Amino acid sequence: MLYPETFDVIVVGGGHAGTEAALAAARMGCRTLLLTHNIETLGQMSCNPSIGGIGKGHLVKEVDALGGAMAIATDEAGIQFRILNSSKGPAVRATRAQADRILYKAAIRRRLENQPNLTLFQQAVDDLLVEGDRVVGAVTQVGIRFCSRTVVLTAGTFLDGKIHVGLNNYAAGRAGDPPAVSLSARLKELKLPQGRLKTGTPPRIDGRTIDFSRTEQQPGDLDPVPVFSFMGTAALHPRQVPCWITHTNERTHAIIRTGFDRSPMFTGKIEGVGPRYCPSVEDKINRFADKDSHQVFLEPEGLTTNEVYPNGISTSLPFDVQYQLVRSLPGLEQAHILRPGYAIEYDYFDPRSLRSSFETRQIGGLFFAGQINGTTGYEEAAAQGLFAGINAALQCRDEAAWLPRRDEAYLGVLVDDLITKGVTEPYRMFTSRAEFRLQLREDNADMRLTEAGRQLGLVTDERWDAFNRKRDAVSRETERLRSVWVNPRNLPATESERVLGKAIDHEHNLADLLRRPNIGYEALLSLDGGKYASPAVSRETLGALYHPVVEQLEIGAKYAGYIERQKDEVERAAHYENLRLPAELDYLQVPALSIEVRQKLATHRPETLGMASRISGVTPAAISLLLVHLKKQKFTGFAEAANQAQQAA
Amino acid sequence: MLYPETFDVIVVGGGHAGTEAALAAARMGCRTLLLTHNIETLGQMSCNPSIGGIGKGHLVKEVDALGGAMAIATDEAGIQFRILNSSKGPAVRATRAQADRILYKAAIRRRLENQPNLTLFQQAVDDLLVEGDRVVGAVTQVGIRFCSRTVVLTAGTFLDGKIHVGLNNYAAGRAGDPPAVSLSARLKELKLPQGRLKTGTPPRIDGRTIDFSRTEQQPGDLDPVPVFSFMGTAALHPRQVPCWITHTNERTHAIIRTGFDRSPMFTGKIEGVGPRYCPSVEDKINRFADKDSHQVFLEPEGLTTNEVYPNGISTSLPFDVQYQLVRSLPGLEQAHILRPGYAIEYDYFDPRSLRSSFETRQIGGLFFAGQINGTTGYEEAAAQGLFAGINAALQCRDEAAWLPRRDEAYLGVLVDDLITKGVTEPYRMFTSRAEFRLQLREDNADMRLTEAGRQLGLVTDERWDAFNRKRDAVSRETERLRSVWVNPRNLPATESERVLGKAIDHEHNLADLLRRPNIGYEALLSLDGGKYASPAVSRETLGALYHPVVEQLEIGAKYAGYIERQKDEVERAAHYENLRLPAELDYLQVPALSIEVRQKLATHRPETLGMASRISGVTPAAISLLLVHLKKQKFTGFAEAANQAQQAA
Repeated sequence: MLYPETFDVIVVGGGHAGTEAALAAARMGCRTLLLTHNIETLGQMSCNPSIGGIGKGHLVKEVDALGGAMAIATDEAGIQFRILNSSKGPAVRATRAQADRILYKAAIRRRLENQPNLTLFQQAVDDLLVEGDRVVGAVTQVGIRFCSRTVVLTAGTFLDGKIHVGLNNYAAGRAGDPPAVSLSARLKELKLPQGRLKTGTPPRIDGRTIDFSRTEQQPGDLDPVPVFSFMGTAALHPRQVPCWITHTNERTHAIIRTGFDRSPMFTGKIEGVGPRYCPSVEDKINRFADKDSHQVFLEPEGLTTNEVYPNGISTSLPFDVQYQLVRSLPGLEQAHILRPGYAIEYDYFDPRSLRSSFETRQIGGLFFAGQINGTTGYEEAAAQGLFAGINAALQCRDEAAWLPRRDEAYLGVLVDDLITKGVTEPYRMFTSRAEFRLQLREDNADMRLTEAGRQLGLVTDERWDAFNRKRDAVSRETERLRSVWVNPRNLPATESERVLGKAIDHEHNLADLLRRPNIGYEALLSLDGGKYASPAVSRETLGALYHPVVEQLEIGAKYAGYIERQKDEVERAAHYENLRLPAELDYLQVPALSIEVRQKLATHRPETLGMASRISGVTPAAISLLLVHLKKQKFTGFAEAANQAQQAA
Repeated sequence: MLYPETFDVIVVGGGHAGTEAALAAARMGCRTLLLTHNIETLGQMSCNPSIGGIGKGHLVKEVDALGGAMAIATDEAGIQFRILNSSKGPAVRATRAQADRILYKAAIRRRLENQPNLTLFQQAVDDLLVEGDRVVGAVTQVGIRFCSRTVVLTAGTFLDGKIHVGLNNYAAGRAGDPPAVSLSARLKELKLPQGRLKTGTPPRIDGRTIDFSRTEQQPGDLDPVPVFSFMGTAALHPRQVPCWITHTNERTHAIIRTGFDRSPMFTGKIEGVGPRYCPSVEDKINRFADKDSHQVFLEPEGLTTNEVYPNGISTSLPFDVQYQLVRSLPGLEQAHILRPGYAIEYDYFDPRSLRSSFETRQIGGLFFAGQINGTTGYEEAAAQGLFAGINAALQCRDEAAWLPRRDEAYLGVLVDDLITKGVTEPYRMFTSRAEFRLQLREDNADMRLTEAGRQLGLVTDERWDAFNRKRDAVSRETERLRSVWVNPRNLPATESERVLGKAIDHEHNLADLLRRPNIGYEALLSLDGGKYASPAVSRETLGALYHPVVEQLEIGAKYAGYIERQKDEVERAAHYENLRLPAELDYLQVPALSIEVRQKLATHRPETLGMASRISGVTPAAISLLLVHLKKQKFTGFAEAANQAQQAA
């Protein structure tokens, strides 16, 4: 049957990528259809019950700044929130939350069900409708044909999915869900450049059988409880609970090694490559053989379940090994496994065959997002889904694609990395991937993206108003601070010493003083009985926006210099692009580099520094360290290249 | 791998049967393991979002009286409660609730997760471990072998499940869930007597696209809101909402008929027989061709979803027909279907091969419960699950099976019907199946069963205490009412007229007066300024038990006579067992019988009345009507049989 209604955008898949793609296209006014094999699993967290973290939290805030669902759903579902790296610079600070799986799913489903312009339909997709070199729709399992101008495919791990536990395996899209076999075959017929990847998940534990007294408690940040969305508040959060930490030990590692000969990874049963940065526990024991302990975080799966997620022991070892290894962990001596850990292999497609909009080069109107592009992680999926949804919608409007730059957003870094470098293993975001990371912060994701989102039609009036109040307050106050001058004559020395630590010896404006490392905005404005305070920046005037505004004022003042310097460095680094690397260099002996980077460089032996920088996993930071090494070793050719760079700067 | 722990009872399946089986065995102290292909789907309502109804509500109350979960979970999840037949006699009064699917699942999962002695494990079961003619465990999809003394199989529609929409079909256990193919094959190897049945479900509608103003509102009972569990209160209920009613019309029926040539039922694609008493809409249009309209109830699926369940249009017609038929209903002209309706075919096993305990005759220790025994309905499944769980546990204790009689419980009727009559179509409970229905009421399910449940170890102290308070209050007050006498001398005529409608002319005890049709307990005890009231039966003393106690006192007084008479009738009817039916009788011309019963009798042409009574779907009520018909027609042989019966009575 040909469905009588024609859509602008069909999104296939209801995970994190599909959710954001469908919501974004619908927010932009496109008639959007979300096809899922099961409405009950919309927004399901297939792996760990957490959202965010370093690099990933940045993506979530960017998705939020563009009106996406992930951050606010996490605010509604989060049972523990932490700011990671809170003692470090704001660029690497990141929000991470444990989510109640059931509440998270409910929060996502409510948004999907109630989004204007968005239609849901439950049925697996078996085929795409293709005319010439354009997609024109999708066909479901019972032959219902839905027509559309564009299709966004977000198939996660479902395409020809195969679950492995030890040497046993079976076809599945996820534990408990059927795989998408017909669609996989159809995509192979279309000759898209396809490969296999794998990912894994740990066994889940019945919390009733854990002796938490033998573990270490890890509470969340409670004063204040962090908030994920720019539109969120702590009042949205459900009850907050702690996590717990235990550790692997020599016995654990010995148990794991006994399973190596029945590991689907080590015996070649699994062809797909797994995520290096989210390795299985057997991979960790194998690769870091001299490490005698690894942390295992015991994360609650929700407020209404006893299930616990042991983060750190993802495994596809045989179940008997899983059973023993779990019971070798302190506190888990009597632990009962509720669901076995497993690895899953699935099809992905080489993202280098995508246009910069994530439209496939081979089939016009067909967009890919999420794990199908070779990534791992909920946040990477959500960001790509949003991006593909936006660009599918723009194509329907006959408008040019929206392409955030690498210096604008982690989303820009993610997209650019994927389409230019491709992947050799599931791609995960890190701050180190962003050469402009000092300016790509969580705190300013809205300042970077919300205006663009508004122009695209992604941002509601409510968000836009709040954003403008914040931006205006920051900009006006920044101007005012620059225009208010204090000097030794109009500022009593006692006040200067109280607030600034010492008397001032010449005239300063308030913006200059705020630049000093230990001077906060509130302390500064307490000078001289608060006579420099601004009524426009007060808790009364700004309400929930007060803290974000003060944060922007402080970071803006303190980090402006660093950000300028970073810009210079990035430009200078570009000039090293053609620096030829010494053929005799033994990368394994460069101590400043991580083992992974050393191994990758040793394997690939790039000819130039530019080529080195494009190897997946070789970060801009690693390139800087390599440069330093070359300089120290007085590598010939370095001086010349350095001169060029100097001149350019 | 051989799992190191051995269980007493393994329950395979986490639906309504599996839930009650696992909880019952664990309550009885058995080490119990529940194996499910997906923990997320525990307690899922695969079809309509409602629990209870006539006959079915009776089963739910019986399950509750034995400590089961269904009634109390419904109290926690129910968004509309009604007492059906509230104006009729208490025997056919029944509770029916609409449940919020998400809340219901949560209520069931919480109970399963927190039940002592019960272990959950997520993985599909592919095989049974059999030694000789006994089951000794189950094997999961990745080869984990769990040993046990007994196994209760509650596979629902999953065994070789096949979903049909029009002439398309695919393997599935339920929409969105994989089928159990290996286990089906294994059971076939074991040569258990197997067949195929089918059931169906309607398309689900996006409530945002329904114009409810064109439908009729059907509110629940609100004053008071009914309660399902003997341990429940209305305070457990979430917010209450109404249902809505619309109707099929001539155009609907014409649309449906256009799909007959692509109906999997009518074209022979489906081999399995469907439930006559829960027919698909095409079946209704086909069988009742002269009916020009059928009711369709629009039932909300929950408080947090827009999904609506259109009860009455279950269908496996092609999707294009579903689309049109839905839009032909008043209020649904613009309706969007979220999930297509479908039929599902699955394996069942002839229940006549079960022992009276539900243990299979072929394989010792292997029990079957639910749809696998050829039934339909959540309530029938729950009751069977509880029963099989109890008997598996008793077998582990080396105790005799528990077998409630037909005059004790609908559960007894259900089990006896299944094992003696078998099924030719999915079996559903009706009050007409119970020859002792006047005494098998919802209101006295606890009086009938809780003591047995306590002896079996199914009933908590809390329930047992409440039950005893209730039973004692009823029994003491019944005695007291019999012992308090009023007469024209000690009762003022004005009082007698006010309460009883007229003056009394001789002495009566209060129990006699309560027997009168229009005299309630409270009114009776208001006689003479309340001087006959009992402090032991007051809201203050009994709290939540007050109303149930008064109800028992009233029903006990008013219906004792009818129940005695019923007993006589049942005994007398037994004597018609051997009454030979006339070979020339044209059953199709017996106007008192329903069309179904006429057809069945015409097809089977039973030799005796006893054989007629054992035909599936031929109820005791139908037998009585047939007897009346034979008597009217002065059928020879009737007088003789009637005489025998008379003598026996």
